[in-house]
Amino acid sequence: MNVKTELITFNTGMALENGHKLDSFELMVESYGKLNKTKTNAILVCHAFSGNHHASGKNKVNEIGWWDEIIGPNKSIDTNKYYVVCCNNLGGCSGSSGPKSINPSSNKPYGSNFPLVTVSDWVNSQKMLMEKLDIPYWHFVVGGSLGGMQALQWSIAYPDKIKKAGIFAAAAKSSTQNIAMNEVARESIRKDHNFHDGNYLEHGVIPKNGIKTARMLGHITYLSEQHMNQRFGRKFQDDSSKVGLDVDFEVENYLQYKGEKFSEIFDANTYILMTKAMDGYDAASKSDDLSSALKGVLAELLIIGFYSDWLYPPERGKEIQIAAMNNNIKSSYVVLNGEHGHDSFLFHSDKYSQIISKFIES
Amino acid sequence: MNVKTELITFNTGMALENGHKLDSFELMVESYGKLNKTKTNAILVCHAFSGNHHASGKNKVNEIGWWDEIIGPNKSIDTNKYYVVCCNNLGGCSGSSGPKSINPSSNKPYGSNFPLVTVSDWVNSQKMLMEKLDIPYWHFVVGGSLGGMQALQWSIAYPDKIKKAGIFAAAAKSSTQNIAMNEVARESIRKDHNFHDGNYLEHGVIPKNGIKTARMLGHITYLSEQHMNQRFGRKFQDDSSKVGLDVDFEVENYLQYKGEKFSEIFDANTYILMTKAMDGYDAASKSDDLSSALKGVLAELLIIGFYSDWLYPPERGKEIQIAAMNNNIKSSYVVLNGEHGHDSFLFHSDKYSQIISKFIES
Repeated sequence: MNVKTELITFNTGMALENGHKLDSFELMVESYGKLNKTKTNAILVCHAFSGNHHASGKNKVNEIGWWDEIIGPNKSIDTNKYYVVCCNNLGGCSGSSGPKSINPSSNKPYGSNFPLVTVSDWVNSQKMLMEKLDIPYWHFVVGGSLGGMQALQWSIAYPDKIKKAGIFAAAAKSSTQNIAMNEVARESIRKDHNFHDGNYLEHGVIPKNGIKTARMLGHITYLSEQHMNQRFGRKFQDDSSKVGLDVDFEVENYLQYKGEKFSEIFDANTYILMTKAMDGYDAASKSDDLSSALKGVLAELLIIGFYSDWLYPPERGKEIQIAAMNNNIKSSYVVLNGEHGHDSFLFHSDKYSQIISKFIES
Repeated sequence: MNVKTELITFNTGMALENGHKLDSFELMVESYGKLNKTKTNAILVCHAFSGNHHASGKNKVNEIGWWDEIIGPNKSIDTNKYYVVCCNNLGGCSGSSGPKSINPSSNKPYGSNFPLVTVSDWVNSQKMLMEKLDIPYWHFVVGGSLGGMQALQWSIAYPDKIKKAGIFAAAAKSSTQNIAMNEVARESIRKDHNFHDGNYLEHGVIPKNGIKTARMLGHITYLSEQHMNQRFGRKFQDDSSKVGLDVDFEVENYLQYKGEKFSEIFDANTYILMTKAMDGYDAASKSDDLSSALKGVLAELLIIGFYSDWLYPPERGKEIQIAAMNNNIKSSYVVLNGEHGHDSFLFHSDKYSQIISKFIES
């Protein structure tokens, strides 16, 4: 597989939705496969809240890409046939410009001064990336969760630059409960003693505890209740492998472990920025309703939900499907079993993978 | 209404389930109405996680009791007819012995050294209270959520001391997801900079931020998603009444406000202790299964669930009902609409109130 990882600079800068102007910015980009001569085989993969540009294969430090079960040679998104592009979103913490970057006006990390970006801003930056890569249009823009919101927004914002969109485990807007959960996560970060109003890097510390708590909560919302019951039930953690003194149950140990790991790699300001973008997205915010918002869409849509997903349950996909039908948009809506709750979109299953590859080829 | 609020001391002490012995302890007790001459009209009301002894009417500082919609003259639990007793659970923070109490062996607050108590311990202490009050048996033991667990445990532990049990919005054991959510709440408290391993009182501080985050999360789990959607939707908070700079949506403001209020009155060690008791309870822990556990039950059961409750959904009540039926226990299981999610058990509705009063009178 032809893999290319590069940091691309956009010196022209970009006007953000909130009125702020970024004078210049960088995107960390990874691509797989090759653009064909007719330039008709480009696919944009959009990452979810805590993802990054590394979607497939192993990178230099042997980490497997977050969507490796779906993207690769002879996989659903077949890198033998398609040129697949994935970038770390603006505001991220995996190489693209974000709160960890140096603010040229102060020569210090942006911290909490990095502007709040939106799903629309990401789509606009990805449009600039498309042009930079000399791609005339995307054959397919796809993502799960927050990535699905970007795919939907692409179909709305640039109808003639996208042939097909894949919107998986996503919604046209976050629910009240989604926002509420994210606010708890943000609260735990902001109130970490080491947060320093977001300028922790200047103080040489990171708000690890806050990020850990936030992730533990997030993790619960990504899994299905049934899956947790089956995997952990009410089993007690054996003493020898307890990560904390206060741990009684296996599920506590698991969450502690996962939260701790995540807190070592993820940036707190990015956590806040990404959840704010997720909460703030409403595909219909500039229209009367979702049907009106989708009026100009030309792309064919594939909407996939999972029964066990309680974060963005299947009903949220159905809302998009109904709005698509109201506009005579060619659209397919499928609900799959998926054992892994919201995270189901990350994993291969024969049905899921086949639906994706057939849709791309159709 | 005849109301009595008193602190009762138990000098004989009590052996706890975990092997620890409390040499003496105190319970803060409130009662309504009068014990009749035949001593057949006593009702024990057990409080949920953050409740206390003050269940009905207004207290000295004008606070309305947590179950005032259900308990009072001519209400479902009619204090004109019944002698209703409610105590702050052992380990609580409203007057009963708990982490805030002075440890006689150190002359400092117990803090995190207060022993972890269990639902069984509470039931045992309430049995001692019953004897102290010269009550031969309870006509009815009732509670919602963690209070319902105590009512269930009463029917198992002291079958000849309880005629009827009311188990509302409860379960015979917490689910994996319940435990997971509580662990996130505990984590936010333990990692508060002011927690000091639970000995914050000695340091003259309280881990307010941790309690606040914990309560914000808890609050989400007590409300139904639909109720939150209807009440808050995606409405933005107007600037003039924002409680924090980072607040965008009304639901954020609401949770911030509720969390803040709670953090000013509730004790962090009690939060940990109560959630540990909730997580740890399993009515069948000493039996093969729930049916075996209920074998000796003599009380008549009233099990009520609420469709909108996703913390202890109706299925959890059904498990108790099935186990009761397997033992030919006289038992009624009802699922009501209840708009308020898990919290529905707290509120009056004509149907709910009528079911309770008919059951008590039957």
